[in-house]
Amino acid sequence: MQLYHQFFCPHSRFVRLVLDEYGTDASLVEEHEWKRRPEFLALNPAGRVPVLVDGALNVPGANVIAEYLDESYGSQVGDKRLMPTASGERVEVRRLMSWFNAKFFSEVSELIAREKIWKRYMRAEEGGGPPDSFAIRAARANIAEHLRYLGWLAKTRKWLAGEKLSYADLAAAAHLSTCDYFGDVPWQEDENAKNWYARVKSRPSFRMLLAETIPGLPAVSAYADLDF
Amino acid sequence: MQLYHQFFCPHSRFVRLVLDEYGTDASLVEEHEWKRRPEFLALNPAGRVPVLVDGALNVPGANVIAEYLDESYGSQVGDKRLMPTASGERVEVRRLMSWFNAKFFSEVSELIAREKIWKRYMRAEEGGGPPDSFAIRAARANIAEHLRYLGWLAKTRKWLAGEKLSYADLAAAAHLSTCDYFGDVPWQEDENAKNWYARVKSRPSFRMLLAETIPGLPAVSAYADLDF
Repeated sequence: MQLYHQFFCPHSRFVRLVLDEYGTDASLVEEHEWKRRPEFLALNPAGRVPVLVDGALNVPGANVIAEYLDESYGSQVGDKRLMPTASGERVEVRRLMSWFNAKFFSEVSELIAREKIWKRYMRAEEGGGPPDSFAIRAARANIAEHLRYLGWLAKTRKWLAGEKLSYADLAAAAHLSTCDYFGDVPWQEDENAKNWYARVKSRPSFRMLLAETIPGLPAVSAYADLDF
Repeated sequence: MQLYHQFFCPHSRFVRLVLDEYGTDASLVEEHEWKRRPEFLALNPAGRVPVLVDGALNVPGANVIAEYLDESYGSQVGDKRLMPTASGERVEVRRLMSWFNAKFFSEVSELIAREKIWKRYMRAEEGGGPPDSFAIRAARANIAEHLRYLGWLAKTRKWLAGEKLSYADLAAAAHLSTCDYFGDVPWQEDENAKNWYARVKSRPSFRMLLAETIPGLPAVSAYADLDF
């Protein structure tokens, strides 16, 4: 399998965590979606990463990939399955996966990734330029609300969607990890959210994410610290 | 079952089409999400319609509802199932469902619904006011691109995702129907897209949508015309 991904893209990070948790090996291909390469648009006409190529099949988009991997490999990983089988629990995992992959992305993590990282690599005509401080302030205001909700979930459940680690935890942690690189997650404001993140961050699948750095823009010191 | 929906909300229309195609009866509850009613936020903390209430279970969001209905009722409807069973076909239906429910929504149908309809019902502090002509112009520019892609799909396949009617067709048609009320779909520019829409529009499930009107703001004459 090949995964077309983008540096610090929260959706790509989510899929990488899932692939690693499932013990599935995929080679990474870095794609800068703003280049709109024709070969990449042929894989995904929507022009966005991540895209998983599994043999002859192109699977575009974080949620579609998650469903595909569960249907293709979920039943083979036994207790490590990231999607529950009971109907109500599936609804809850999908609700939270969508919360982070859509709502949190548009309100927080896309703003931070675009303004602080991707714009550094874009030419002006591709949307590059200095960070928009208004967008970053909006993301920081929004993340406080999300963290409160996350903390409430973490307080009332063992994992975000229930008794077991699921796609919901990996999606949330992937998006937060991109923000956390810059110290943009106010962990001190919610102990429950912080403890939950410490547990996810300690998983072996997370190591590769914590090892990544942006040239010329080091992470805050707590980013890769498991006892942050 | 109860469906919390919003007038002319494309996601709500999609779910209503699905429920009707599956022969499932749900009572409609109109919810103005911008009111942020505490009782509604308890059903869906994201505060958005549609939410399907099935007994004790709250199922929020168009894609989550589609997956839930397929898993709960899809196997009982035989040939009328709107989600295929083969892996690659499921990827394609989900890709296009996401295309319309996420990409088309944010680039076109949400702009049109919000600027032309919902803002009429919002107070100023809820975001109400006159339509933003910049947003409407953006939606009209974007819809032309989407229609070309839709036309290409309709030309090369029997239905949007393949040989059979699927969630992809109903999602696309639901979003287009909201724009079509105002004559904002340039059908004359793509014969294939137009012929595909005429087929979906002729389905009995579509009748209830075509009968709906906005007080003081009638539809363009072609809206409910099956030979538009």
